[in-house]
Amino acid sequence: MSSKIIGTGHYTPSQIVKNTFFQDSTFFDENEQPLKQSNEIITQKLKEITGIEERRYAMDDQVASDLGFQAAQKAITNAQIDPETLDYIIFAHNFGDVKHGSIQSDMVPSLASRVKHLLKIKNNFCVAYDLLFGCPGWVEGVIQANAFIKAGLAKKCLIIGAETLSRVIDPHDRDSMIYADGAGAVIMECSDDDSGLKSHISASFTLNEIDYLYFGPSYFNQDSDTKYLKMKGRKIYEFALTNVSKAMKKCFDESGYDIKDLSKIIIHQANEKMDEAIVHRFYQLYNTPQPPDIMPMIIQKLGNNSVATIPTLLAMILQGELPQHKINKGDITLFASVGAGMNINAFVYKF
Amino acid sequence: MSSKIIGTGHYTPSQIVKNTFFQDSTFFDENEQPLKQSNEIITQKLKEITGIEERRYAMDDQVASDLGFQAAQKAITNAQIDPETLDYIIFAHNFGDVKHGSIQSDMVPSLASRVKHLLKIKNNFCVAYDLLFGCPGWVEGVIQANAFIKAGLAKKCLIIGAETLSRVIDPHDRDSMIYADGAGAVIMECSDDDSGLKSHISASFTLNEIDYLYFGPSYFNQDSDTKYLKMKGRKIYEFALTNVSKAMKKCFDESGYDIKDLSKIIIHQANEKMDEAIVHRFYQLYNTPQPPDIMPMIIQKLGNNSVATIPTLLAMILQGELPQHKINKGDITLFASVGAGMNINAFVYKF
Repeated sequence: MSSKIIGTGHYTPSQIVKNTFFQDSTFFDENEQPLKQSNEIITQKLKEITGIEERRYAMDDQVASDLGFQAAQKAITNAQIDPETLDYIIFAHNFGDVKHGSIQSDMVPSLASRVKHLLKIKNNFCVAYDLLFGCPGWVEGVIQANAFIKAGLAKKCLIIGAETLSRVIDPHDRDSMIYADGAGAVIMECSDDDSGLKSHISASFTLNEIDYLYFGPSYFNQDSDTKYLKMKGRKIYEFALTNVSKAMKKCFDESGYDIKDLSKIIIHQANEKMDEAIVHRFYQLYNTPQPPDIMPMIIQKLGNNSVATIPTLLAMILQGELPQHKINKGDITLFASVGAGMNINAFVYKF
Repeated sequence: MSSKIIGTGHYTPSQIVKNTFFQDSTFFDENEQPLKQSNEIITQKLKEITGIEERRYAMDDQVASDLGFQAAQKAITNAQIDPETLDYIIFAHNFGDVKHGSIQSDMVPSLASRVKHLLKIKNNFCVAYDLLFGCPGWVEGVIQANAFIKAGLAKKCLIIGAETLSRVIDPHDRDSMIYADGAGAVIMECSDDDSGLKSHISASFTLNEIDYLYFGPSYFNQDSDTKYLKMKGRKIYEFALTNVSKAMKKCFDESGYDIKDLSKIIIHQANEKMDEAIVHRFYQLYNTPQPPDIMPMIIQKLGNNSVATIPTLLAMILQGELPQHKINKGDITLFASVGAGMNINAFVYKF
């Protein structure tokens, strides 16, 4: 018995925000000092390091659960299932529904309940809950769905990742240019064939890493009570380079496959250079040269939309929206994520 | 193999808030009209219907994760386990950490991560995540821990429910007098003996019930952007009476025990009259007279502290803090909860 992905969907907001959007911003550092470089140089450096040229923001009348609903509907259509047969709706996010212009997170009822309502599902035994696990929340949702399937609690699960980071960013922090909005979803089903989830790993590093990603005051005014998504970029980079590559290896080793069998790495996209370094290190751990095109990237056009990134990337590949990347029946893939917590997780999946 | 509770703990804030605290409040109805009755009569009616005489609020310098940490530490001590052996920390809440005087929910990093940090746990493979499922979130956390144990993912789990509802209440809404702060936690372990979790049920009613509990504007000023926890009390009462009693019966039937074997019902406490009516209806469904003292109540002194209520009640009974209620080895108990979503869940547990 295994857990198999039978449908995918993504909803990518139509509002394109190019790097030039930030040309009149006033950026400060963590000590409230204005950055010395021009915004042109700051955005140029952003692009060089993270790869980001543009990102998407939700429309003013949308919230995270709206994006999640759109992605969910597409995944259901793609899977060709009756939504009434779903046993679980798992919604990964980290800030709830934050209306445009508001600083409050709205999570009562849960975003999973809201999606279930919008899908008009009548089956009361379809259990709808929200999962908070940083950016790796969607991957963790897949791991939880797999546990429910293995434990005999579920046959079909909808796992959604949706976030509107544009609603929680400090306009005076250059890191804010990284964040974006989006939603992705998959349907997983209990299956008897040889494909599906083969191994997985999850870890929470909280002893020294608890505040690498946090909710804190604006760099413009540290005394203000309003909080924004903040990160300690250098620490995250160093942490991820070592620990994500190691976790990926541990997970891949547990799958029993040979490293030469691996055909794609679907990794969370927060920073292109960081992802390249992680994957480079991963292959170093196997003393194996890195194959070309192993790691599809969408950060250039979509930025970092947290829990939405991996399911969006997967849906785009499977639906032919990234023509240079294909996943074929029988392909062995490795999914990996890292984010607030600090949490790291990964799973090996055979298509 | 079963999932067994091996330790419990609760943290009940020391700040007692009596009904007289609200004597100078100005209450309005959902149409922004001032209530006609005196506050003395309003609080008298509150006490008659809900049973609430007083409730606890966290101190100004505490947030939900602080309360959760205290309860977790007590459960760990009570279970006499090394916290490094925990495989999961599951933290159920609905509003995150809301600082006194703030309207923002802070959930990055997750509250489970914060507790793991405060517990100084070094084991990175202890997975810390937050679960949002309305008031039944803690019961759902137990059900999820049981799934992880059954699926072979975990041997020991810490499940915490903590909430500071005092930080999200509308001072002009009389329903706000119901809400309270608190935290409870248990340790669950994979066990080979005959005790443990025997059956469980979860349901999400979202088609027509999605907004019975919601985050909405103050009754004093509906145009204000600030949102508070709101409820449609009459609708919840009618919904719960029918659906909670039915869910409890379905869960109990699945356990295979005879109704005469049932020795305690540990039910979420939002309203004493409602709980009495649910349990009355439950026994009616079995055509069986209701035994005395079947349902311990703590709402009189603790109010409705959401996800914290059931683990707090359980810890109080097991630790002899409610001398009139005992749970002995071999006792069959039924846990049940209802809340925002609208979600209902239950489990049968043999001690």
